[in-house]
Amino acid sequence: MSTLTQAHGVYPIAPTPFLDDGAIDFASIDRLSEFYLRSGAAGVTVLGQLGEAPKLDAAESLAVARRFIAAFGRTPVVVGVTAPGFAAMRTLARECMSAGAAGVMIAPPNTLRTDDQIAAYYAQAAQAVGAEVPFVIQDYPLTFAVQMTPAVIRRIVQENASCAMLKHEDWPGLEKISALRGFERDGSMRHVSILCGNGGLFLDFECERGADGAMTGYAFPDMLCDVVRLQREGRRDAAHDLFDAHLPLLRYEQQPGVGLAVRKHVLQRRGLIGSSAQRAPKAALTAAARAEVEYLLSRLGRHDSRAALPQL
Amino acid sequence: MSTLTQAHGVYPIAPTPFLDDGAIDFASIDRLSEFYLRSGAAGVTVLGQLGEAPKLDAAESLAVARRFIAAFGRTPVVVGVTAPGFAAMRTLARECMSAGAAGVMIAPPNTLRTDDQIAAYYAQAAQAVGAEVPFVIQDYPLTFAVQMTPAVIRRIVQENASCAMLKHEDWPGLEKISALRGFERDGSMRHVSILCGNGGLFLDFECERGADGAMTGYAFPDMLCDVVRLQREGRRDAAHDLFDAHLPLLRYEQQPGVGLAVRKHVLQRRGLIGSSAQRAPKAALTAAARAEVEYLLSRLGRHDSRAALPQL
Amino acid sequence: MSTLTQAHGVYPIAPTPFLDDGAIDFASIDRLSEFYLRSGAAGVTVLGQLGEAPKLDAAESLAVARRFIAAFGRTPVVVGVTAPGFAAMRTLARECMSAGAAGVMIAPPNTLRTDDQIAAYYAQAAQAVGAEVPFVIQDYPLTFAVQMTPAVIRRIVQENASCAMLKHEDWPGLEKISALRGFERDGSMRHVSILCGNGGLFLDFECERGADGAMTGYAFPDMLCDVVRLQREGRRDAAHDLFDAHLPLLRYEQQPGVGLAVRKHVLQRRGLIGSSAQRAPKAALTAAARAEVEYLLSRLGRHDSRAALPQL
Amino acid sequence: MSTLTQAHGVYPIAPTPFLDDGAIDFASIDRLSEFYLRSGAAGVTVLGQLGEAPKLDAAESLAVARRFIAAFGRTPVVVGVTAPGFAAMRTLARECMSAGAAGVMIAPPNTLRTDDQIAAYYAQAAQAVGAEVPFVIQDYPLTFAVQMTPAVIRRIVQENASCAMLKHEDWPGLEKISALRGFERDGSMRHVSILCGNGGLFLDFECERGADGAMTGYAFPDMLCDVVRLQREGRRDAAHDLFDAHLPLLRYEQQPGVGLAVRKHVLQRRGLIGSSAQRAPKAALTAAARAEVEYLLSRLGRHDSRAALPQL
Repeated sequence: MSTLTQAHGVYPIAPTPFLDDGAIDFASIDRLSEFYLRSGAAGVTVLGQLGEAPKLDAAESLAVARRFIAAFGRTPVVVGVTAPGFAAMRTLARECMSAGAAGVMIAPPNTLRTDDQIAAYYAQAAQAVGAEVPFVIQDYPLTFAVQMTPAVIRRIVQENASCAMLKHEDWPGLEKISALRGFERDGSMRHVSILCGNGGLFLDFECERGADGAMTGYAFPDMLCDVVRLQREGRRDAAHDLFDAHLPLLRYEQQPGVGLAVRKHVLQRRGLIGSSAQRAPKAALTAAARAEVEYLLSRLGRHDSRAALPQL
Repeated sequence: MSTLTQAHGVYPIAPTPFLDDGAIDFASIDRLSEFYLRSGAAGVTVLGQLGEAPKLDAAESLAVARRFIAAFGRTPVVVGVTAPGFAAMRTLARECMSAGAAGVMIAPPNTLRTDDQIAAYYAQAAQAVGAEVPFVIQDYPLTFAVQMTPAVIRRIVQENASCAMLKHEDWPGLEKISALRGFERDGSMRHVSILCGNGGLFLDFECERGADGAMTGYAFPDMLCDVVRLQREGRRDAAHDLFDAHLPLLRYEQQPGVGLAVRKHVLQRRGLIGSSAQRAPKAALTAAARAEVEYLLSRLGRHDSRAALPQL
Repeated sequence: MSTLTQAHGVYPIAPTPFLDDGAIDFASIDRLSEFYLRSGAAGVTVLGQLGEAPKLDAAESLAVARRFIAAFGRTPVVVGVTAPGFAAMRTLARECMSAGAAGVMIAPPNTLRTDDQIAAYYAQAAQAVGAEVPFVIQDYPLTFAVQMTPAVIRRIVQENASCAMLKHEDWPGLEKISALRGFERDGSMRHVSILCGNGGLFLDFECERGADGAMTGYAFPDMLCDVVRLQREGRRDAAHDLFDAHLPLLRYEQQPGVGLAVRKHVLQRRGLIGSSAQRAPKAALTAAARAEVEYLLSRLGRHDSRAALPQL
Repeated sequence: MSTLTQAHGVYPIAPTPFLDDGAIDFASIDRLSEFYLRSGAAGVTVLGQLGEAPKLDAAESLAVARRFIAAFGRTPVVVGVTAPGFAAMRTLARECMSAGAAGVMIAPPNTLRTDDQIAAYYAQAAQAVGAEVPFVIQDYPLTFAVQMTPAVIRRIVQENASCAMLKHEDWPGLEKISALRGFERDGSMRHVSILCGNGGLFLDFECERGADGAMTGYAFPDMLCDVVRLQREGRRDAAHDLFDAHLPLLRYEQQPGVGLAVRKHVLQRRGLIGSSAQRAPKAALTAAARAEVEYLLSRLGRHDSRAALPQL
């Protein structure tokens, strides 16, 4: 049984830092990794959708994964290996596992529709990456347009021993967590870790429903760690108080497209990456959006000193 | 020029109240209308998507519209007339305008893709309902899967004199408001009212970007009215303070599918409709969700006494 | 058990004839009905997608259905009752059944994705139209974007006693027919009639796979009747010879969008409807397309005298 | 100006031949290439969608492209470089151009909707592969779900000097060819080659509308070459006679999914590739489908001796 199956806490979705000219910024990978570990992250996920994975070529993908793996040491690194086909997926998965990754994350192609198609895809993908490689299902209908019922997720888990975790980011999704944990209680599904994404928009309730934590990329991953910890300690009101203080900014960052620009901008404002540069295609922050983020940060700074940044 | 072109403030999206057996609850229409007017609504929109319009037959649609129109008196009522074809759209539009509606709202069929298809659709729809009938464009890609650029909206406005308003609910959408108001400033587009939907999730910034208010259905439309008023009065921080206090619940209600159950439940809790019943297809609230809503209400009640409801 | 369950032969999908001004051409309905009966049609389906059903309002829909029902006498008429919601569906279904329809046809809304959503939709629709009303599943992914596996169709058939027929127009679809007939042989599914659509593009093999005939709208429904009859008589080569002679034109007519213009044009050329007018939105035939149709008719006329029309 | 801009004739879409164990069958690449050249192909396109390009990893893609390029000598080879992002696209494009490719083919990601999104995508792609690299637009809405109007295609052509060709496979698509050639005549668009795909289903009329030939993968590319040649020679009836004889099989092969299995099966039956093996995900031929193909071949063999194959 893999470590991932029992994972809890926060696995930040790491952005891929670029220099202003678009080259990979390896020094920022190190700085970011150090910060994640200091914040209490239980692991990290790299080469996700918001890690701009599709914008890297094969050699770059491997180089980024290796750098994070080196920086994280014994702390688990999950590598996104989503690809248009199984050959490319297998190649990247094998290379990353050899380099020390803890597992791989696989999102479904957005052409899948029926329950059988989804289950067949994951069976083939599991076989492609290798039966011994722990994998994470990414269930993100808003971006991938694939709708997985709880029963389909159970089917994938039961049919593939190497399935270790669900990255849950359905929306709405609270009932899905309850349904999956119900399957576990009634014995129809073995335990896998459930970490929640979707920008953290419902993290306040997701843990209460049975999720093990978060796997998402909000620019204050330290807040995500605190909320999950407070919930585990049974300090519900404190968890919600902290979460609610961040919600206006979190919601702003959770916007599709422009959200990544917000995230990289705030990470840069916090000194955690050197540049907010993205590779094309990208959505940039206008002056108005930048001012809105500053206003949100200033309001947040009154509740959480981590957001009280020196003015631009 | 129609009244709608200059509209500002809040036009709540009215739910259609049903009795527990699924019949239309006309008494609740009256009660709800009276509440909207008392809260400072500038108008109302009926037979929208979240008014369960597709679940009514032709005769029921007209009956609901007429009841709201009667209750609102001189305050404008916009009627959703979205239909699979132009004949049904025309029939309902003509009947409602005869009954005293201020205008109609038209959403695009989810099969439209190219700019030309979208512009052609609205030109045909405007002709179908009649060139003298003010209409509202509903721009809601999350639900309707149609992506309208600012340039396409400008084209619809310029090509159709009867286009009076944009129900803006793109996501992300702030830059779209800025772009459209920019078109107005550079003289390439005449003024239309922009009221924002999408559950109010970005209402705090939408007014600052140039929107005239809200057209959406959150269970505290009185809060929406207050936020828009505060923004118009230049009391920015106060507007955000009030908005932020509601954001945890508002975000919860903005969930697709289950959101309407939350909305009707809270409206019933507030005594504004007699039953939270929906017609099929519907998503129901589980006990867990109900408890979450109560928790959110209790937290909100500390900031806004309107949410301090007697316990269940 | 309804008549439809045992149906075989051809149920043409009737176009709705319009006068040049867009009014319904009831005289052409009579002429067309008389022709269908003379050609050996086993029934007819009205108010389908290519019957421009969405372009009629509620009163017109009923009037068209009634006229066909009157013209067909005891020969079964299936009425398309697809609607955005169950109330409108129920109203039309009840009125048409009262008027003498043999059953109703229901297409799924294009937002359905998972197996459970599809099965739930048909269960609710069956209940909405009334448990005693025979209904036809329309399985047309190319137009409706809903993918039903054989197992989902079986589930709908088994869960709803009033399900009488499958209008099969998946593409590719031959294996689906074999799978469904296999379910019938292994006892896991009761018998329903399978009539094939999709313009008849694979009718030559569909009967051989176990379909009972066709429900589609090619401008030579008399050919469709002949092909199904020849197949039933075991005259395979003759069936294919006739089919292949028509295939170049049939393929031309099966094009989405412009196909209906071709169909109405050829029906008018044959003297079966008074005008090829469509209501908006519509695709018109260019001069080039018209010339191509003439060329195809002239080539076909050498093999099938029914296509040897007087030159324009 | 690149050679591709003036291309005419047939560029077969080459399948990627695999051995039964899934390894690339380089010997069959040579055999197939030799056959294409002998049949009169003007060029070839490799690593297309039906060349199973997404099923190869980066190294394999390059190896396949290089082998075809070597086999074709001075005859142009177009390489599909469609990728989830620009970095991978650039890497493959540069390697293939260095190896002697004549140009690259780029399909749009299926998330593009608006005209501006499509034009921006091709501008970025053109820049990514390099301004000096001739590229082919692949316009295939049935598979890629992106709808390009003639005006958008014109915009791409006019904005990108390196755009050399349109692989036209819209459906319906005849009017699009006429519109584009009309743009050329009215001076609003420069000339690019238009080669037609979509399995050749409308090749009989596409050349008459102004297309320069075909770029598609029917198992009788020699027939495609003949039809294009006959049309160029003005022998219209002969072109249609030959095309019509093939249409029953061509239509059968043009089915999505299973079509590639038919194609590879027939190519193997003709001795042009060693195995009909595909990599996963794949649709296999059932015994019934195999028998249908044999029947179609036997009927075709009466008109075209190339289809008169020794019985299985």
